Amino acid sequence: MVTKQEIKLIKSLNQKKYRQQLGLFTVEGIKGIEEFLKSDFKLHRLYTTKQIFDNSKGDAVGISENELKKITALKNPNTALAIFEIPKSEDVKDNTLIVALDDVRDPGNLGTIIRLCDWYGVKDLVCSLNTVDCYNSKVVQATMGSLTRVNITYTNLDEFLSNLKSPIFGTYMNGENIYNSKLPSEGIIVLGNEANGISEKISSIIDRKITIPQFGKSKETESLNVANAAAIVLSEFRRRTIEM
Amino acid sequence: MVTKQEIKLIKSLNQKKYRQQLGLFTVEGIKGIEEFLKSDFKLHRLYTTKQIFDNSKGDAVGISENELKKITALKNPNTALAIFEIPKSEDVKDNTLIVALDDVRDPGNLGTIIRLCDWYGVKDLVCSLNTVDCYNSKVVQATMGSLTRVNITYTNLDEFLSNLKSPIFGTYMNGENIYNSKLPSEGIIVLGNEANGISEKISSIIDRKITIPQFGKSKETESLNVANAAAIVLSEFRRRTIEM
Repeated sequence: MVTKQEIKLIKSLNQKKYRQQLGLFTVEGIKGIEEFLKSDFKLHRLYTTKQIFDNSKGDAVGISENELKKITALKNPNTALAIFEIPKSEDVKDNTLIVALDDVRDPGNLGTIIRLCDWYGVKDLVCSLNTVDCYNSKVVQATMGSLTRVNITYTNLDEFLSNLKSPIFGTYMNGENIYNSKLPSEGIIVLGNEANGISEKISSIIDRKITIPQFGKSKETESLNVANAAAIVLSEFRRRTIEM
Repeated sequence: MVTKQEIKLIKSLNQKKYRQQLGLFTVEGIKGIEEFLKSDFKLHRLYTTKQIFDNSKGDAVGISENELKKITALKNPNTALAIFEIPKSEDVKDNTLIVALDDVRDPGNLGTIIRLCDWYGVKDLVCSLNTVDCYNSKVVQATMGSLTRVNITYTNLDEFLSNLKSPIFGTYMNGENIYNSKLPSEGIIVLGNEANGISEKISSIIDRKITIPQFGKSKETESLNVANAAAIVLSEFRRRTIEM
């Protein structure tokens, strides 16, 4: 059973303000919850309509389908909802490949970028303070569990980048052709906002502007989606390490 | 002004069945509509709260904000809604790079794949009959106008692929490493369904199975999002043409 107070708490976690105040976030669906249960994330509470979870990390609370409908943020809720504690970010290591986001706002984009970092072995993702919250339920959903394997830090991006020794790369429309560029195995890749790209302030501390060249002939084609740009840039950085 | 009958017609275009019956689809927002007005797509009707469009292609119907709310499919409608005619697909040319989709279901994924085709100069996108409809309003929104520059054909994918002479590539978890593969400038790249990948039937006619290798060490990382996989594969096919 889920009490009125619990429903209120869970609903409040749809807002960033309350997630930060309480240090908690929700995960929905069997597969996603299992990924978090296997990880170092600490379970706060687990509500489920079927007793299918390993109880070693805490007891699951049995609820009805109707109760699940009251607490879910999804149109089609799937069996269970769990509340986990938001972990502290680990320190970012400088001598590796890092991805930094300058105000990426779309939850789906952030989610797939986290998945890409996981795939390409990028341990640290650094986000500007205006980047969408990675514990937003749509982001959690889109990461498919990768959120448990990438260390995400929200910080003043300007200051963070200014203190780094590694070269800082940024994606632009008019930079050097990424396919012909020499790319190091260590560095920071900065990706910008969906509508405005990388801000002027951050642009002033970028060491190398890189571009994914357009092959189509239309001048109308504006740009690639930021998550697709991230995919191509990470692919380019990583494939060089095989070819070396 | 917009009549009750028009509202009914516009609402019906949210369903694939009626889009196909009537041969019409909707585009929302100033920027998107302008892209379609500049293209060869034929305008059926244009409703707008501000008189900002070039009227050479047909008169715009002035409507109120309240009327716009009645016809929009968006939470936050933007100034205008247009109805365009669905064009006939052009014949697919065999001697080029083609992308084929085997039951891609997510509108956002199809939208960004169309944008990628446009970026990488892929003229033809061939979709299985169960792939999400490219005139779905969410797809139209996500393509950012690229829909006007890519020829999209829905067909029995199995039959279509069986009749082609070019080599057929498919993305798998256990194929040859794409970074070390020789890739031609002509061929068909098949991408599969979000949950199930490429179907068995289509798999049996794939000539070369290719894989984007995983650099992260976790065995839990399942796969890349299909649009991101498309981005990386198209990038790999196209960059070889520069390096040659």
